[in-house]
Amino acid sequence: MRRHRYDNDTTVISPQGRIFQVEYAMEAVKKGEATVGLKNKDFTVLASLYEPSAEGTMQRKIMPVSSQLGISFAGVAPDAKTLFRYMLLETHTYRVSYIGKIPVDRLMINLGNKVQAHTNRYDRRPFGSGLLVAGYDEQGSHLYQVMPSATVIKCLATAIGSRSQIARDYLEHHMQHFEGCSKDDLICHGIRAIRGPLGIEQKLNIQVAIVGKDVEFKVFGEKETQKYLQMANHLGFLLESADTADL
Amino acid sequence: MRRHRYDNDTTVISPQGRIFQVEYAMEAVKKGEATVGLKNKDFTVLASLYEPSAEGTMQRKIMPVSSQLGISFAGVAPDAKTLFRYMLLETHTYRVSYIGKIPVDRLMINLGNKVQAHTNRYDRRPFGSGLLVAGYDEQGSHLYQVMPSATVIKCLATAIGSRSQIARDYLEHHMQHFEGCSKDDLICHGIRAIRGPLGIEQKLNIQVAIVGKDVEFKVFGEKETQKYLQMANHLGFLLESADTADL
Amino acid sequence: MRRHRYDNDTTVISPQGRIFQVEYAMEAVKKGEATVGLKNKDFTVLASLYEPSAEGTMQRKIMPVSSQLGISFAGVAPDAKTLFRYMLLETHTYRVSYIGKIPVDRLMINLGNKVQAHTNRYDRRPFGSGLLVAGYDEQGSHLYQVMPSATVIKCLATAIGSRSQIARDYLEHHMQHFEGCSKDDLICHGIRAIRGPLGIEQKLNIQVAIVGKDVEFKVFGEKETQKYLQMANHLGFLLESADTADL
Amino acid sequence: MRRHRYDNDTTVISPQGRIFQVEYAMEAVKKGEATVGLKNKDFTVLASLYEPSAEGTMQRKIMPVSSQLGISFAGVAPDAKTLFRYMLLETHTYRVSYIGKIPVDRLMINLGNKVQAHTNRYDRRPFGSGLLVAGYDEQGSHLYQVMPSATVIKCLATAIGSRSQIARDYLEHHMQHFEGCSKDDLICHGIRAIRGPLGIEQKLNIQVAIVGKDVEFKVFGEKETQKYLQMANHLGFLLESADTADL
Amino acid sequence: MRRHRYDNDTTVISPQGRIFQVEYAMEAVKKGEATVGLKNKDFTVLASLYEPSAEGTMQRKIMPVSSQLGISFAGVAPDAKTLFRYMLLETHTYRVSYIGKIPVDRLMINLGNKVQAHTNRYDRRPFGSGLLVAGYDEQGSHLYQVMPSATVIKCLATAIGSRSQIARDYLEHHMQHFEGCSKDDLICHGIRAIRGPLGIEQKLNIQVAIVGKDVEFKVFGEKETQKYLQMANHLGFLLESADTADL
Amino acid sequence: MRRHRYDNDTTVISPQGRIFQVEYAMEAVKKGEATVGLKNKDFTVLASLYEPSAEGTMQRKIMPVSSQLGISFAGVAPDAKTLFRYMLLETHTYRVSYIGKIPVDRLMINLGNKVQAHTNRYDRRPFGSGLLVAGYDEQGSHLYQVMPSATVIKCLATAIGSRSQIARDYLEHHMQHFEGCSKDDLICHGIRAIRGPLGIEQKLNIQVAIVGKDVEFKVFGEKETQKYLQMANHLGFLLESADTADL
Amino acid sequence: MRRHRYDNDTTVISPQGRIFQVEYAMEAVKKGEATVGLKNKDFTVLASLYEPSAEGTMQRKIMPVSSQLGISFAGVAPDAKTLFRYMLLETHTYRVSYIGKIPVDRLMINLGNKVQAHTNRYDRRPFGSGLLVAGYDEQGSHLYQVMPSATVIKCLATAIGSRSQIARDYLEHHMQHFEGCSKDDLICHGIRAIRGPLGIEQKLNIQVAIVGKDVEFKVFGEKETQKYLQMANHLGFLLESADTADL
Repeated sequence: MRRHRYDNDTTVISPQGRIFQVEYAMEAVKKGEATVGLKNKDFTVLASLYEPSAEGTMQRKIMPVSSQLGISFAGVAPDAKTLFRYMLLETHTYRVSYIGKIPVDRLMINLGNKVQAHTNRYDRRPFGSGLLVAGYDEQGSHLYQVMPSATVIKCLATAIGSRSQIARDYLEHHMQHFEGCSKDDLICHGIRAIRGPLGIEQKLNIQVAIVGKDVEFKVFGEKETQKYLQMANHLGFLLESADTADL
Repeated sequence: MRRHRYDNDTTVISPQGRIFQVEYAMEAVKKGEATVGLKNKDFTVLASLYEPSAEGTMQRKIMPVSSQLGISFAGVAPDAKTLFRYMLLETHTYRVSYIGKIPVDRLMINLGNKVQAHTNRYDRRPFGSGLLVAGYDEQGSHLYQVMPSATVIKCLATAIGSRSQIARDYLEHHMQHFEGCSKDDLICHGIRAIRGPLGIEQKLNIQVAIVGKDVEFKVFGEKETQKYLQMANHLGFLLESADTADL
Repeated sequence: MRRHRYDNDTTVISPQGRIFQVEYAMEAVKKGEATVGLKNKDFTVLASLYEPSAEGTMQRKIMPVSSQLGISFAGVAPDAKTLFRYMLLETHTYRVSYIGKIPVDRLMINLGNKVQAHTNRYDRRPFGSGLLVAGYDEQGSHLYQVMPSATVIKCLATAIGSRSQIARDYLEHHMQHFEGCSKDDLICHGIRAIRGPLGIEQKLNIQVAIVGKDVEFKVFGEKETQKYLQMANHLGFLLESADTADL
Repeated sequence: MRRHRYDNDTTVISPQGRIFQVEYAMEAVKKGEATVGLKNKDFTVLASLYEPSAEGTMQRKIMPVSSQLGISFAGVAPDAKTLFRYMLLETHTYRVSYIGKIPVDRLMINLGNKVQAHTNRYDRRPFGSGLLVAGYDEQGSHLYQVMPSATVIKCLATAIGSRSQIARDYLEHHMQHFEGCSKDDLICHGIRAIRGPLGIEQKLNIQVAIVGKDVEFKVFGEKETQKYLQMANHLGFLLESADTADL
Repeated sequence: MRRHRYDNDTTVISPQGRIFQVEYAMEAVKKGEATVGLKNKDFTVLASLYEPSAEGTMQRKIMPVSSQLGISFAGVAPDAKTLFRYMLLETHTYRVSYIGKIPVDRLMINLGNKVQAHTNRYDRRPFGSGLLVAGYDEQGSHLYQVMPSATVIKCLATAIGSRSQIARDYLEHHMQHFEGCSKDDLICHGIRAIRGPLGIEQKLNIQVAIVGKDVEFKVFGEKETQKYLQMANHLGFLLESADTADL
Repeated sequence: MRRHRYDNDTTVISPQGRIFQVEYAMEAVKKGEATVGLKNKDFTVLASLYEPSAEGTMQRKIMPVSSQLGISFAGVAPDAKTLFRYMLLETHTYRVSYIGKIPVDRLMINLGNKVQAHTNRYDRRPFGSGLLVAGYDEQGSHLYQVMPSATVIKCLATAIGSRSQIARDYLEHHMQHFEGCSKDDLICHGIRAIRGPLGIEQKLNIQVAIVGKDVEFKVFGEKETQKYLQMANHLGFLLESADTADL
Repeated sequence: MRRHRYDNDTTVISPQGRIFQVEYAMEAVKKGEATVGLKNKDFTVLASLYEPSAEGTMQRKIMPVSSQLGISFAGVAPDAKTLFRYMLLETHTYRVSYIGKIPVDRLMINLGNKVQAHTNRYDRRPFGSGLLVAGYDEQGSHLYQVMPSATVIKCLATAIGSRSQIARDYLEHHMQHFEGCSKDDLICHGIRAIRGPLGIEQKLNIQVAIVGKDVEFKVFGEKETQKYLQMANHLGFLLESADTADL
């Protein structure tokens, strides 16, 4: 009860050193459809669930920023798109100024800075969405997780959003195999991570994207997605038996 | 009761990660006269109810932005007009800067960004109106739904405003036929969707507009509207029998 | 009681999607002396009541913006004058920039935008006055009603302010005849609408203005006003017998 | 009690459409020493009471803006002086820009606009003083009353400030004679209006000013003021007998 | 109790038309060490008490702005110094712009305006000090009193600060003699006014300054001050006998 | 309880002269993973604990600003990164402006100033992280501790963050030996300080960095870190026996 | 209790004319380690206590601004450093603009102005530290005391901070001898003043600085400080016997 005295404003710190508004924004991420990201040396894969609405509308959950870089998100979609647009502008500005592609690290520093400002200003609120950023540049493939708290973490594999714990468990369990994976295997791992306990017969509303060595950032169309779903199911049988053994 | 502590300001997030002011703005949309939009590959149709006032005044519910683009809305009219004016300016600026027509996608990103800003600033409130945007460009026909939450959704068919559930049900039910529809049939579907359970004899205060292949954005005059109302009634008989069978 | 939690600020939306401060501003309009406007293809007429003060002071209720355009208002006079001044500036700016007269439609979009901004900013309040705008341009004659909610409505005839319901009833009842009216008859209808149930002998503190085809915007002097009052009374006898029959 | 919820801020409108802070500012005017203004075709006269302080200090109650224009005020003196300074600047700017004298009407529109802004901004309060403005230009003599509500009224005669009702009664009673008055008679009427029920022997702390045809704005010195006080007393006997008869 | 609802902010007017924050600032002046000013045609004298602190520190109570102008104050010293600095800048700017000395009247209008702004802004508070300004220019000698309310009064003699009523009584009593006074006599009157009922033997912590015809603004050193204290005591005996007679 | 009246805002000072929001921000530092810094004439060493997350993500706790300078932090990571980015910009700006390396002292003055501003502004909150800055320039090696209170302290050795008291005890106990230490010994002391009471067998999630004479700022890779961990354990046995003797 | 209504904001004056936030800031000064300053015609001396922290860190309590000027402080260190940095900039700006050294008086006017602004703005708080400024220029040596209230006092000797009353008593007692003091004696008086009742054997954590005729501003190193501590003890015996006699 008392703690509510400090939870109305991002410019107020609680006596325990917490910033409640930021923590509440994290709740918004937890309520969004889950998304996972995973990578090895050459490729980064994003996979996201989405809620298809009755009239055939579709919210994009994965958005390409450039040929090298794309994002997926969980949480408040318009907030994610605002960050997406920020990244578009940064990428464009860099290209024009330096006649080259923005290093992913540099873009992430700027993005983190922008998100942080919203945890620290009287007249704004924290962004209500978490982002996974998949990129590829001269340093190789990258996967970043950006949260409303402005935490920017470099990951091998991660998952955010509603019921993402299951996906994180899967990823943690199989992470040691990613480095040796082919592109297709990595995609299958991504699909299996986000599918979680759903049976393989069950329809999966899923978007999948990849970026990496000699592969520009690409969100798969329905046909390719189906192909990988099939492939993941097949892979699944193999892995599940192994998993059970492990557990 | 407690939840009211977090619902006075767009810069305050509730402990559950909700932004109440945005949700309240959605209520304003639900109170406005309904509007529907639907599209196939070549055409996008908008149809809106309006409340004729006693002295013969008429509020425009459908507004042309350019020869390629127009909007209808539900909710607070002046808020919708502010967004309309924003789109006018963006379209004009692009035309002057690039000697060409603004891609609908690009305009939508900017519009979403503007609406999002109002969900995230201490000194503003969210816009109190939802928009349907019908456009046509080199990518073909487009239909977008823009809500006070700044959600921008690409749709095949949608309806917003008071009692729009009936329209959405209609659209969902017949959506699979739209792609094969002629321009006239698509218009008739739009009229039938928004007419809902009203009998065909009942006077319908309706505005209808279309944009598409070789058709500049056009709000029909009274005469043409009547023509299509007749046509929709005719179409109606055919469909209703079919519907009943389906249900 | 509870609703008062949301009625202190234009940036707060109520859970029902209402913006109370805007509604309260509408109350200020209802307390002002009434004004009516009516038009046919060629002319637009404004008529306003005013309260003469004891020392012979007179508040202008009708104000010419240009030779083509003028306004009357109900509600907080200084707020109306601020909008009046805005229109003066817009008109002047356009004239200087384009060497021509500002189209009435365009001015109305800008005006609506300005009024809307005051329904949507933390540091302002909605304007406390409603405006009737009478104009004439290449599209013909125009009558607009602009309210504190920023609603801009194109009208054939309308009335705002204290006890304006009676005037609206009159206008609705006779609207079908306006199109065929001569300039003088239109003026007489305006006078009769605003006079309402006052007997024809009773002194009427009234201002009347007209704009239209070959007629620059003009507020009548006392002499001409008297002439039209006489004429309206005469017309009145004719109409009243007809009205009684109708009712 | 309840009404107090809406009376702390000029940006809050009460449910009845009132802006209490503006009404409270009007109270500040009512507490100031009274001032009167009156005019005929050729002249405008201002007369103000002032409270002489013990050490021989004197607050100016009438201030010349230019050779054509001057003001008197009732209420918060520093607020009036701020407006006075604004008028000085406007007059000067116009003179420099147009090589001519600012029309009184135009200055009044700008002044009203400035005062109105203070009834409509979160970070200011309404001005706490009412102004009478006496001017003379090509349109003849002018008298304006400007109140904290930003109401700008063109008057023949008016009075504001503490116990100004008596002065208004006097002015209303004699107004019909002003047009025919000589310059001196008009001054005497002004003095008599503000003197009110004070006996002619009683010392009157009064400042008097005139502007008009061939007369630049001038605040009378003590000697001339005394001369007119004498004259007013004389005139008084004549008028009082007449008044008594009238009443 | 109730009145406290309106006394937290300079932008809030009470229902009685009072601005409490300004009145509270006047209290700060009443708590400062007293200062007096007095003038005749040729000279203006300032005299101020000060509280010597134990370690030999000394706060300047009289500050020269230019060779023609200086100030003393009562109340919050840093606030007074901020105004002092403003006057320095204004004087300097004028000198640079016009190659001449700023007329005292003009400086006072600007100063009043600056002080007034602080009675009328949300993000500031009224200045907590009153100023006496002594100046000499082509119009002769000047004495102004500037209060937190932004009241700027031209005076012959005045006193502000703690227990200044006694000084005001003295000044009022002897004011009629000032015009005929020599420079030295005027200084002695200033000293006697501020000394009040203190016996002539009692040590007086006093600063004295003069400006006038052929005398640049000068704060007396300790030696000269002592000389005038002696002189004032001598004058005192003469006057006191006369006073007693008068009273 | 009462003290809570003053703890919501950095612009409010408590009656005891405390600024609670700053103190609360210090709590955020205390909750972060610990980091230590220590130096001798030629080298400065940073060592930080970090919490490895399950999926192999890693938050950088030590960040290089330039070849001469790097930081570690405890507390809110995004806040630390915002300061990190500020330092990047300052360093870059200086390099461009002066064609040289920014002196560490100068950078620290600017950084302290930036942090201080956040303890003193209505629309921001204090930074929620403490920084240790290790640098080397012409003046030799430097170690600074920068806290949310904007306190910038030059240190020989220090530790901040969760349970850092143990590290501080260690540092204080061995500080006298640092000056004579070799580079490797200094690193070992850093590791031992932060390891605290953990047994040498226990896995230590640690990052270590050094900067100094002929050594550019460098965060050790895993291999080198392991090497020093071994070395520190060895050193540990030697020291512990000595310590026990001391204690 | 009631007084707390006025103590949250520097822009609120209490009914008694007090500004509580400023008074609370003075409390912050009282809690800081004490510092003393004293001067004669040729030299100004600063002496400050400091709290040495366990790890050998040291907060600078005396900071040189230029070769002519330095400061010591009591209270919130980062606030003092912000003012220090302001003085650095002012000094630098002056040097560049005028090719000369800034007069100490002028710098003090600017500094006072800056500090005053923080007692008078909604979005800031008063500085939480008091400063002693020691300078030497063409007018000779200077000692100023600058407090959070923005009071700038020219002193012969002063002391601020925790338990500074004892130091002030010492200074007051011996002040009459300072003018005749040699440089070394003045330093010893400073040390003795701040040492207060501590026995001469007790370790004194002290910083000492001097500026004056032919002596650039200099903070003594440890060796010199020790030398003067010895000297002060010796001087102490002499003086103490004298003191006892005096008392």
